[in-house]
Amino acid sequence: MTFKKLTKKALPVLAASAVAFGGLIGTVQQTEAQGKADHREIKNVIFLIGDGMGVSYTSAYRYLKDDPSTKFVERTELDKYLVGQQMTYPEDPEQNVTDSASAATAMSAGIKTYNNAIAVDNDGSEVKTVLEAAKEQGKATGLVATSEITHATPASFGAHDESRKNMNAIADDYYDELINGDHKVDVLLGGGTDLFVRNDRNLTEEFKKDGFSYVTDREQLLADNNEQVLGLFAERGLPKMIDRTEDIPSLEEMTASAIERLNKDQDGFFLMVEGSQVDWAGHDNDIVGAMSEMEDFEKAFKAAIDFAKKDKHTLVVATADHSTGGYSIGSDGIYNWFGEPIKAAKRTPDFMAQEIAGGASVEDTLKQYIDLELTSEEIQSVKKAAETKKATDIDNAIEEIFNKRSHTGWTTGGHTGEDVPVYAFGPSSERFAGQIENTDQAKLIFELLKTDVKVEDK
Amino acid sequence: MTFKKLTKKALPVLAASAVAFGGLIGTVQQTEAQGKADHREIKNVIFLIGDGMGVSYTSAYRYLKDDPSTKFVERTELDKYLVGQQMTYPEDPEQNVTDSASAATAMSAGIKTYNNAIAVDNDGSEVKTVLEAAKEQGKATGLVATSEITHATPASFGAHDESRKNMNAIADDYYDELINGDHKVDVLLGGGTDLFVRNDRNLTEEFKKDGFSYVTDREQLLADNNEQVLGLFAERGLPKMIDRTEDIPSLEEMTASAIERLNKDQDGFFLMVEGSQVDWAGHDNDIVGAMSEMEDFEKAFKAAIDFAKKDKHTLVVATADHSTGGYSIGSDGIYNWFGEPIKAAKRTPDFMAQEIAGGASVEDTLKQYIDLELTSEEIQSVKKAAETKKATDIDNAIEEIFNKRSHTGWTTGGHTGEDVPVYAFGPSSERFAGQIENTDQAKLIFELLKTDVKVEDK
Repeated sequence: MTFKKLTKKALPVLAASAVAFGGLIGTVQQTEAQGKADHREIKNVIFLIGDGMGVSYTSAYRYLKDDPSTKFVERTELDKYLVGQQMTYPEDPEQNVTDSASAATAMSAGIKTYNNAIAVDNDGSEVKTVLEAAKEQGKATGLVATSEITHATPASFGAHDESRKNMNAIADDYYDELINGDHKVDVLLGGGTDLFVRNDRNLTEEFKKDGFSYVTDREQLLADNNEQVLGLFAERGLPKMIDRTEDIPSLEEMTASAIERLNKDQDGFFLMVEGSQVDWAGHDNDIVGAMSEMEDFEKAFKAAIDFAKKDKHTLVVATADHSTGGYSIGSDGIYNWFGEPIKAAKRTPDFMAQEIAGGASVEDTLKQYIDLELTSEEIQSVKKAAETKKATDIDNAIEEIFNKRSHTGWTTGGHTGEDVPVYAFGPSSERFAGQIENTDQAKLIFELLKTDVKVEDK
Repeated sequence: MTFKKLTKKALPVLAASAVAFGGLIGTVQQTEAQGKADHREIKNVIFLIGDGMGVSYTSAYRYLKDDPSTKFVERTELDKYLVGQQMTYPEDPEQNVTDSASAATAMSAGIKTYNNAIAVDNDGSEVKTVLEAAKEQGKATGLVATSEITHATPASFGAHDESRKNMNAIADDYYDELINGDHKVDVLLGGGTDLFVRNDRNLTEEFKKDGFSYVTDREQLLADNNEQVLGLFAERGLPKMIDRTEDIPSLEEMTASAIERLNKDQDGFFLMVEGSQVDWAGHDNDIVGAMSEMEDFEKAFKAAIDFAKKDKHTLVVATADHSTGGYSIGSDGIYNWFGEPIKAAKRTPDFMAQEIAGGASVEDTLKQYIDLELTSEEIQSVKKAAETKKATDIDNAIEEIFNKRSHTGWTTGGHTGEDVPVYAFGPSSERFAGQIENTDQAKLIFELLKTDVKVEDK
């Protein structure tokens, strides 16, 4: 149950002064992103955001995936490209810990703004985003997310609104706001049919009329190869990876599909990909869901890296907008964090809670979806919660089993303000190194794409 | 009370599609450590460890020190030199979250070992440390800490023991273990007279007999300029910075004094400096103490950087061994973290609790040492704790005031397993960039100092 399996040995009495060394020299496993300047021209930019993906998440995911038969813990795909950290604070009159809208606006437009702002500044003025600047240059553009595609993070790249809550208006922006006569986002993949098919307007029909494909399941997505596509795979956000049925594409599949389409444009492309629900799991203090979404995100990141390695003119940057939940690896004085109980889950606590709230037996549900011998106290705690018939209570009781067994700690149902990791690969990736501002992401992309956008530091 | 003072403005209705940009281009504030390879020869190494200094601590300290009159948050001295993060897991049969002994041994000797191990491996064999290798090369060596100088972190650089608890034996090692006939550590500055002046042995006399100066207060330390010095400024650990009296040197003063002495050696030097009590404050869930110790550490780091900038042949690396307390910036769903209540404290809660437990009035003590208008509920909570007469209870009650007012969250009284920041400056500092193993610290230093030490990866 440790990260590394070890036979416990009795410690021999120390030999007086025998200093042991010799043998093979230990290899310093240098990561790939180690500051070698790469001045090739940038044609494409893939910007990935793990929403809520603070350092505890990226570290825990590595330990969860570790192969216990090897001496050192294996690096994740992300680890290999770590270049630094970024600050996440917003410029909000009432809050100094950011939300996803303000943070995404910082990264999309290079300005600090208030929480809830979708690519508008503190005066409410719209600010140009890197996606818009790329489209002005004739590049293809895409947004991919596992939330509603109108949710705060993707919205801050492709829309403008004084509030993230106006998701209908954000969907309208995607259709109505034209750049040089064209729709500004060519590839839109995520959740949110509710926001596009409405009583007042059916945006899916409008997009189709203008030549977009409209796809609603995995098979349709993979069969279609139109350069412009609207793909909506759930009424609101997608189910978490571990809960998904076969008809829903993974973030990796959506990312690969987006890259394939966008790459047909001779002028290059800008693509933003969000692993939206690391954050949602964090808000819920659900370690099973968090690790599920980390895996979904890591695979999407790898798809981007694989493309960039072949292409050689693609800059890939990945980061988080903030961390969520005050999640800690270890809690209550215990010097252990265990991935095994988490890996024993076949569905999220949310999924199981829905089944139970819908009438399924507590014992059968837990047995079906958790590959662990639960104690009678654990089963009893869920049964007690089920008496309320509220899915939230049942969910909390199931989460508690995983939190306790893994020694996962949480301090909040909201966000936290610590710096988050930054990963980069490709031409000029060294420019993202060190300790940067989240606004530097957009400023650097504006500059590296040779746009004429000059962010005003008011 | 926000990081940045902002006048709240009503948001005007958005102009239909006016995208605001123009004006001065925002400067991307590139940090100094941005992967420019520097191949100058390394003569000196200064290795600094902020014990327990995870990302939440380094981020919070920045926000605490921010000048609210400027648009962007000012970087700390550490921020400017961020090059990446390191993994901290130990190789322990029973725990996968590290303690300070195992982590320090990883950084001093390049091996993963069990918790409690002081520069010994899992078989109990002693392993050579970077300090020892430097001394073998004829370099001067030093250990500086605000804990007992025999505590786990410094001990793992200058001693060997199967358990960190054997602090008398560790003190003996500092005197008894010779390298080429010389004491292996030339400068020892920190706390711990109890461990050196004992019934069975008075190591201070033994060191003096061999030509070391022995100093016990700030004035003596600053007046002395002997190349070899034992400085012990408290029976055990030093008081935290904010609680210190004038006769106790700061970590910055100890560091500067150590550098001045060590730099007299023509062969160069190796110095390890520990900000020991960021961790102790974290264990205690004391945000006032934690920020006090961050400041002490930052100033010591700056002293090292200032020297290295002039010297040009000094490598400076700073990092943490692990994080502590599951500390989060923000808690309980609140999107704010406030430095002001923390800055209002003139002493740590521990200090105040000792006074109250010693008979001082609750109200007078709080009034004297906290520059805040406390509510009657807050005062009452401390009075209630004082009824137990236990300093620990009183301490916890006072800490709770600061935690609540600042929105500081904690999940544990122990350590946590997330990656910690790595900072580096000087020749070959780019070698420490990216995501590294804590063992890479020693491996790189062995290599960069051109020692013949080859760490065996068993």
